[in-house]
Amino acid sequence: MKRRDFAIKTASGAALTMFAPTLTYGFKSQADKIKLGFIGVGARGTGQLRLVLNRSDVIVTAVCDIDNERATQAAEYVQKAGMKKPAIYGKNDYDYRNLLEREDVDAVIISTPWIWHTPMAIDAMKARKAVGCEVAGAFDIEECWSLVNTYEETGTPFMVMENVMYRRDVLAVLNMARQDLFGEIVHLQGGYQHDLRHVKFNNGKQLYGGGVEFGEKGYSEAKWRTGHSVNRNGDLYPTHGLGPMAAFVNNTRGNKFDYLTSMASNARGLHDYIVNHPSGGPDHPNAKVDFKLGDIVTTNIKCANGESILLTHDTNLPRPYSLGFRVQGTKGIWMDINDSIYIEGKSPEEHTWESDEAYMKKYDHPLWKRFEKEASGAGHGGMDFFVLNAFIESLKRNEPTPLDVYDHASWAAVTCLSEQSIANGSESVPFPDFTRGKWMNRKPILGFDDQY
Amino acid sequence: MKRRDFAIKTASGAALTMFAPTLTYGFKSQADKIKLGFIGVGARGTGQLRLVLNRSDVIVTAVCDIDNERATQAAEYVQKAGMKKPAIYGKNDYDYRNLLEREDVDAVIISTPWIWHTPMAIDAMKARKAVGCEVAGAFDIEECWSLVNTYEETGTPFMVMENVMYRRDVLAVLNMARQDLFGEIVHLQGGYQHDLRHVKFNNGKQLYGGGVEFGEKGYSEAKWRTGHSVNRNGDLYPTHGLGPMAAFVNNTRGNKFDYLTSMASNARGLHDYIVNHPSGGPDHPNAKVDFKLGDIVTTNIKCANGESILLTHDTNLPRPYSLGFRVQGTKGIWMDINDSIYIEGKSPEEHTWESDEAYMKKYDHPLWKRFEKEASGAGHGGMDFFVLNAFIESLKRNEPTPLDVYDHASWAAVTCLSEQSIANGSESVPFPDFTRGKWMNRKPILGFDDQY
Repeated sequence: MKRRDFAIKTASGAALTMFAPTLTYGFKSQADKIKLGFIGVGARGTGQLRLVLNRSDVIVTAVCDIDNERATQAAEYVQKAGMKKPAIYGKNDYDYRNLLEREDVDAVIISTPWIWHTPMAIDAMKARKAVGCEVAGAFDIEECWSLVNTYEETGTPFMVMENVMYRRDVLAVLNMARQDLFGEIVHLQGGYQHDLRHVKFNNGKQLYGGGVEFGEKGYSEAKWRTGHSVNRNGDLYPTHGLGPMAAFVNNTRGNKFDYLTSMASNARGLHDYIVNHPSGGPDHPNAKVDFKLGDIVTTNIKCANGESILLTHDTNLPRPYSLGFRVQGTKGIWMDINDSIYIEGKSPEEHTWESDEAYMKKYDHPLWKRFEKEASGAGHGGMDFFVLNAFIESLKRNEPTPLDVYDHASWAAVTCLSEQSIANGSESVPFPDFTRGKWMNRKPILGFDDQY
Repeated sequence: MKRRDFAIKTASGAALTMFAPTLTYGFKSQADKIKLGFIGVGARGTGQLRLVLNRSDVIVTAVCDIDNERATQAAEYVQKAGMKKPAIYGKNDYDYRNLLEREDVDAVIISTPWIWHTPMAIDAMKARKAVGCEVAGAFDIEECWSLVNTYEETGTPFMVMENVMYRRDVLAVLNMARQDLFGEIVHLQGGYQHDLRHVKFNNGKQLYGGGVEFGEKGYSEAKWRTGHSVNRNGDLYPTHGLGPMAAFVNNTRGNKFDYLTSMASNARGLHDYIVNHPSGGPDHPNAKVDFKLGDIVTTNIKCANGESILLTHDTNLPRPYSLGFRVQGTKGIWMDINDSIYIEGKSPEEHTWESDEAYMKKYDHPLWKRFEKEASGAGHGGMDFFVLNAFIESLKRNEPTPLDVYDHASWAAVTCLSEQSIANGSESVPFPDFTRGKWMNRKPILGFDDQY
């Protein structure tokens, strides 16, 4: 199968061919093994660390966390994996900068609270440490530009660690789209529909649930994440839904997001949770908190090539988990909620869904075929293996990361743009072009083979 | 069960009690039997006519259609049902006005092409003939005001014949909502997702499909409906999705639509259909037509009480039929696409869908329990029986129609407002308040018992 056979037919009709690197990178891997530092080893960072420790092409040389207990435990994991004890940082909020000065760190994985992602990533790029940065939304457009500018000034690799790009069904459906099963892609839906109430609140001791505390009295994510629901109204966590959809429309690579509108429902779920929880009640101090985050935030994005994207953020209400993907083109449609597909001329019965099971097998992505065994047991249904693998492999080969700073900036921008839209009666807000025109010539590179 | 037990808990927290009429109506039914005239007896009007002929409380006294063949056939149906031959009109576009002058017509059912709905409804109300008007979107806000003003000046009953209000699952879920199963309603989704390509194109002879003709060379709906897809870009047919959702938020009755944004995808489906059809091809004259209607039009509506509504219009692409309803509140969620529900504390497994089957039985609406037999065999899964029944029963009892001119105006307005939003980069557009403030005191009346 020729690589170019995979190209998604775009609205402009231009054939998009395989990637050809156009930038020169300042970063060079100096050894067979990538020397990694971990900045932030809470629940998420530790999960990523433990996956990395399964690999023979990585050495973990340093870990950083302001919670010394977490940092110490991370160091123990490293030693138990047969590596030397890593250097430990975390004496204060900025101790990560000392980690970045180490010569035995090629790259860092950043898994800290959202407000730290950008300053840490910028410091790391300036220190010529390649960055694998956990996902988050942006607080301001300026933040996105700072990342882009630092990347362009330093040439240091940057990758946003969006694991859902590698969900097995998503990659299979991307494979189908590239083989023209859906015809021209017209419309996409997806989002983050995940009841996070037990994440946003706990009892200050356990990771999830058991109480209605957050902030100073909360533990782990409840300590910092919930504050965003108190103070902000927008799509706070856009990338799990938007990243995959961006791949289907070749965002920043032949296409771009043009403008968006966002709408928020009432904010009811978090207050209700506190009031109705056995550890809470109407007299609990947190029952007085005025949560600004609308329970359902709906964002519509219009692309330069005419596609429309519907993105949902839904984390405050009781509901089963579902990213709610829908891929729709001139020849057919797929939805994940009913595991069904309809392809005109192929599906046996007109106007009738068929199960997507056979399609998932037939179009299973080469990456999953190759790495199924390695991925099994990795976090989030194996997706975490792939995103880490992509980061490390692209560094080893000195090739561009598949989800780069332009991808990240355009996805993360949705958060602050959606806040602006909602604050102004769902006004239409234009996206900046973080590529400064390079989107017209950049080529899609994600998932065209079984390499990473 | 007390009627007030059914009240949906609203965002404002105000208890909404049962209907109490506040307007005096000029219309009085003069006899036991309602004397009906039919304006427009194409496919839809004839379907409604035949349903009416099953009833013992209605006499059809006149029919009108500019297609004499259809009018003659309609008259034959009436006679075959044992009634006297009805008067026939349709010599020209305005012959319906002669029908409206007849003393033996109490009410009319209007099932004509969309551009005729408003002038005919206004003429009928002025002639003091109660109006049952088929659904459509509005071309201009002024049109909605004309209907409202004429209604208020004449006091003639008006009902929009939105049959989906009476879909069995929709009424059951409304029943659940009124019994507080979902808690406070926060967000709703629905729309018109129906592949209409075989409706928009035919061979000029048959109702559906068989060719790529429309307009002068098309037959039935293809003759007039398709032109709207050529010339307009908006949610052209909002009410099947929006009507039911409006009931869940008590629109015009304690709540109202505040503003909307709309986004349209590329317009690809209709052109592709022509080009790929065996009777079409790239050289067919219709392959040159520039269809303006985006294949997917997504509209977000914000309500005065804070709920958000997502409305989809999707009629140009190959896809299985689905109105895509989702009802979401502080206690749970229902979706029709997977026939599933999740109610916190009731559903057996946390974060996990359960089939809605048992709920549909338990909460089956009193109307369906009572009229299941009468509805069986009626069009659109029985829904057509209920909407006609509601129109006729409200006239017989001289009670307000359950879907009145304010409901209609606020739904139909979505079409021209969405066109405006799309034409201006998805700008946010405010809804007029067609009730001129009466929404604050109007009470919900639809479906509170088994009457109609």
